[in-house]
Amino acid sequence: MKPGIPKGTRDFLPGEVVKRQYIFDVIKRTFETFGYLPIETPVMENLSTLTGKYGEEGDRLLFKILNNGDFMSKADEEALRKKDSVGILPSISKRGLRYDLTVPFARFVTMHQNEIQLPFKRYQIQQVWRADRPQKGRYQEFYQCDVDAIGSESLVYEAELVQILDTVFTQLGMRVDIKINNRKILYGIAEYAGIADHFMTMTIAIDKLDKIGANKVIGEMMDAGIPETSCQKILNLIGKSSITDLEIIRTASATGAQGLDEVQDVFTFLESMPLVNNIILDASLARGLNYYTGCIFEVQALDAEMGSVAGGGRYDDLTAVFGMNDVSGVGVSFGAERIYDVMDELDLFPKSAMQNVQIIFLSTDDQSLRRAFKYATTLRKEGVKTDIYPKAVKLKKQFKYAGDRGIPFVGVIGERELEDDTITLKNMTTGQQESISLHNLIEKLSQK
Amino acid sequence: MKPGIPKGTRDFLPGEVVKRQYIFDVIKRTFETFGYLPIETPVMENLSTLTGKYGEEGDRLLFKILNNGDFMSKADEEALRKKDSVGILPSISKRGLRYDLTVPFARFVTMHQNEIQLPFKRYQIQQVWRADRPQKGRYQEFYQCDVDAIGSESLVYEAELVQILDTVFTQLGMRVDIKINNRKILYGIAEYAGIADHFMTMTIAIDKLDKIGANKVIGEMMDAGIPETSCQKILNLIGKSSITDLEIIRTASATGAQGLDEVQDVFTFLESMPLVNNIILDASLARGLNYYTGCIFEVQALDAEMGSVAGGGRYDDLTAVFGMNDVSGVGVSFGAERIYDVMDELDLFPKSAMQNVQIIFLSTDDQSLRRAFKYATTLRKEGVKTDIYPKAVKLKKQFKYAGDRGIPFVGVIGERELEDDTITLKNMTTGQQESISLHNLIEKLSQK
Repeated sequence: MKPGIPKGTRDFLPGEVVKRQYIFDVIKRTFETFGYLPIETPVMENLSTLTGKYGEEGDRLLFKILNNGDFMSKADEEALRKKDSVGILPSISKRGLRYDLTVPFARFVTMHQNEIQLPFKRYQIQQVWRADRPQKGRYQEFYQCDVDAIGSESLVYEAELVQILDTVFTQLGMRVDIKINNRKILYGIAEYAGIADHFMTMTIAIDKLDKIGANKVIGEMMDAGIPETSCQKILNLIGKSSITDLEIIRTASATGAQGLDEVQDVFTFLESMPLVNNIILDASLARGLNYYTGCIFEVQALDAEMGSVAGGGRYDDLTAVFGMNDVSGVGVSFGAERIYDVMDELDLFPKSAMQNVQIIFLSTDDQSLRRAFKYATTLRKEGVKTDIYPKAVKLKKQFKYAGDRGIPFVGVIGERELEDDTITLKNMTTGQQESISLHNLIEKLSQK
Repeated sequence: MKPGIPKGTRDFLPGEVVKRQYIFDVIKRTFETFGYLPIETPVMENLSTLTGKYGEEGDRLLFKILNNGDFMSKADEEALRKKDSVGILPSISKRGLRYDLTVPFARFVTMHQNEIQLPFKRYQIQQVWRADRPQKGRYQEFYQCDVDAIGSESLVYEAELVQILDTVFTQLGMRVDIKINNRKILYGIAEYAGIADHFMTMTIAIDKLDKIGANKVIGEMMDAGIPETSCQKILNLIGKSSITDLEIIRTASATGAQGLDEVQDVFTFLESMPLVNNIILDASLARGLNYYTGCIFEVQALDAEMGSVAGGGRYDDLTAVFGMNDVSGVGVSFGAERIYDVMDELDLFPKSAMQNVQIIFLSTDDQSLRRAFKYATTLRKEGVKTDIYPKAVKLKKQFKYAGDRGIPFVGVIGERELEDDTITLKNMTTGQQESISLHNLIEKLSQK
């Protein structure tokens, strides 16, 4: 039998795991520096928690887990007879795989409201599953990295999240633009253009601006009944990139004015310390999700063709669906898979962080193998990542193994080295060889 | 709707995640120091990969994922009619959740044999799922931490794994006994006792020695047709704890002699550096699994009532079931959940490693909030885990929040501090207060 893995899933070889771990470590360390705490939720959630939260399409894309035991004995008779795949579900499956981290977070907050303190700042880096048709760069199993502050409407958190975005991408060595907008500004633009009742249509249309261009956006809005003059006003305003240029909406819309003030407050907090990357007010940023109610963010990589690599925003009533009201929050999510692709393309992974083993010891007989083992033990005690070829086979074969694995240093113990109490150290990059004592070898490698 | 999670699964609050992460970090760091490389495999595997690998009971305990889309249209007609839960499976479910890390590892090695170099040393720390009846300390979703070296029969790896066990438990502060035995010694004992054909019966029986006692073990063996004199010989020999005392089997069993030599070789490698914990030859150690063929290990915590906290051994033909032959290996697995319970019971988690936030800034008005934000930004740039109360509400409320969260330092910015360019720093443990400059605060906290 020739083994395989389900389509849309991946194995990760050591080289890939190390790179992925590097990204997660930078993100995690940054989250923690900003006072966010880690939580973990189960991979399996009750379907009653998940169903209906992601729309009809989402329900279809949930992976459902069959009830264990004799599930057919409890299968719904009528659905069985009709071969109704949707109708039979509730009777044979109670659990599904996590589809995102937001709904489990909301469920978590509701369940544990007496064990956490509000405001609650959490991060969560875990996998999610979607039965999407697999294609290049889109998987059925992938990681999400979410960071949220809930239980306060303070714009301190918006400012903090912008700093987190800036810090993470700076530490990863990726040049980015951080875009900010506010759903209230968008609403203000709709009010100013006199089409507040078409707000959703407007945001859905302008969300596609980059993809389909201004003419088609106008076409879509006009098809939905927005007058051409309003369309022109809207297109003109969403092209603006400063608060001053948008002040014109202030008198027409109290909501819009509030949106402008919020963005201004975020900028004021951010003045305390210059960001490394640009933060740009982009009035065309809409982030389609109905879900957002205040500031919204999106991060674009500058040196690679790639959609957004991070995004998020302010939302109301995270937990209302589970019966807990008035929990406002703001959060961003990092697209780890896309970040990986960009970093790989631009060769941004630091070589030093990718080095899994620093040295491997080779030996020529049983006695030198035991000496090599002793040296390896000593280096490991000093925290040096050390390997040892486990058998004194032909040196050529051992060197080939070291070379194939890309290990930077090789320490050979032969008859002479056994006698002299030395190690012949070969730098596999330069080819240079030297005779070195264990003491000096430790010194040399533990500095790395 | 009141939300819940599936029975047998768990949410982890920040305090728990940090503790669990601490254990994983120690284990991971140790694995890497010894030259083991991380791999990751998908949570979902094809059922064709999993089924039949864990016995009939295992097949029942696999979580199966329903095929997406209109799965009922392809359901097996006859099984449907008979409501045959087992018979219908192949037609409605192709995927299951990972049941352990060994089978996915074997599948991985077979699939990627041209991308890895043998000997291949890998570790894997991921979750697995089993539909066991949930009970105290037993979950349906839990982590396994496996480390294996495959593609060589060298006893260097056995010795290395013993050092890994010793290092991990030393770093965690847990006192343990490391027990070692060899399945070949057990076979030698069977040959010596003249019941080689009852080898499996014997190992299964003596595996229960701790639980049921010597008399019942003898009873079980006699029931299976092992003569009483043989039983006495066996019981006598498995009580031994030195190679010398077992030498008696050498002439009766070539296999037994090889087992003794193997254990001796491991001890010889280990002489190069004393272990912190005791390593004990325990001839009664059997590790029921048929799977093991050479050295076997088990680790017992000394200061807590708990089964083994780690174990493993040498096996042949890891990948034979997937058509790749002659891959011998040796590995151990850490019982992270049990280690957590022992460490929690014995209060072994170091307080310093558990501290998620070092300081929180409080403020008294909008201006001091902005100053606090600036200070927080500066501390975070220095890598100090810093939080800020997001609104200048009553100080009493802010202090209560800091106290409830167990944050060790509070920095207050009020009117006077704003003017003086100082921070009033309160040590929440001692209650002491001092006025401090930002510069000195950084000095104080970044040393921690």
